[in-house]
Amino acid sequence: MSVKPIRILGIDPGSRVTGFGVIDVYGREHQYVASGCIKTPPAAPLPERIAVITRHLNEVVRLYRPVQAAVEQVFVNVNPAATLMLGQARGAALAALVMHDLPVFEYTALQVKQAVVGKGKAAKEQVQHMVVQMLALSGTPQSDAADGLAVALTHALRNHSLAAQLQQGGLNVKRGRFQP
Amino acid sequence: MSVKPIRILGIDPGSRVTGFGVIDVYGREHQYVASGCIKTPPAAPLPERIAVITRHLNEVVRLYRPVQAAVEQVFVNVNPAATLMLGQARGAALAALVMHDLPVFEYTALQVKQAVVGKGKAAKEQVQHMVVQMLALSGTPQSDAADGLAVALTHALRNHSLAAQLQQGGLNVKRGRFQP
Repeated sequence: MSVKPIRILGIDPGSRVTGFGVIDVYGREHQYVASGCIKTPPAAPLPERIAVITRHLNEVVRLYRPVQAAVEQVFVNVNPAATLMLGQARGAALAALVMHDLPVFEYTALQVKQAVVGKGKAAKEQVQHMVVQMLALSGTPQSDAADGLAVALTHALRNHSLAAQLQQGGLNVKRGRFQP
Repeated sequence: MSVKPIRILGIDPGSRVTGFGVIDVYGREHQYVASGCIKTPPAAPLPERIAVITRHLNEVVRLYRPVQAAVEQVFVNVNPAATLMLGQARGAALAALVMHDLPVFEYTALQVKQAVVGKGKAAKEQVQHMVVQMLALSGTPQSDAADGLAVALTHALRNHSLAAQLQQGGLNVKRGRFQP
């Protein structure tokens, strides 16, 4: 592992819990750095919940200094109020990332499952299991933290030539995927 | 106007345009400071649109140094995707405010219209007209900028004893309204 790693922060946004995972990518190798989840107080006023997400992600970026971020896309809910709330939580997470000038890439849940498990209809437990395998973890991370790691892994897997392209300095980004 | 003013930043979030207005409040007097609107490039990827909102609001806060922020609440749309997008834009705006440790107060469109025009069913033009009157403006601000000023005025009008309470230092905030 003499190559300089690319550090990726993966985020799984949620109105109650925002999962995050940090990995180092050395070409086709991945190494676990950190993961966790940010829980917002459900009874608190919205600005307070937004502040919890923003400040914690701010801390994560300052502490681990990722160079790229991958964020899971969220679905519209049958409940419009829940959709609005989820949107606000995700917007806050994105704001915290772009404020650090982090390039942000978006992946759907389907893309994450396909990249990590190999099929789009995988259960949450299968995602957790594959994250443990791919990062050679000694324990199973909490579900939201595992989703954060999974979206970081998705970004790494979909961009194998990441390191080479970054080293060439001629990175051309389009719709969340690197274009050769 | 020997009293030290309270500077309020009002925000009307939107997925395409975010309006803002800054006013100084001297007891029951209000003075216009600034207003404008942040337009996001509609064809750009979401993280880029979020970055535009976040960075511009960041600039507004750094430049005008408000001590409180008032943000209009948004409605769920018949289109769930539009609701999600609006939520993300509003979440980014809130994140930009709370990152500066600004206390944020929320008001519904109904509360804004009632406070500024005196009735909840007022048309957009009436809000613009009253903003011009109340701040003795020489011209009519753009509609979204006027909404930003209107929500700032709403916060001021609903908290007449703002200055007195702040000077006493015993501010007790609950659900976006000051409690005596």
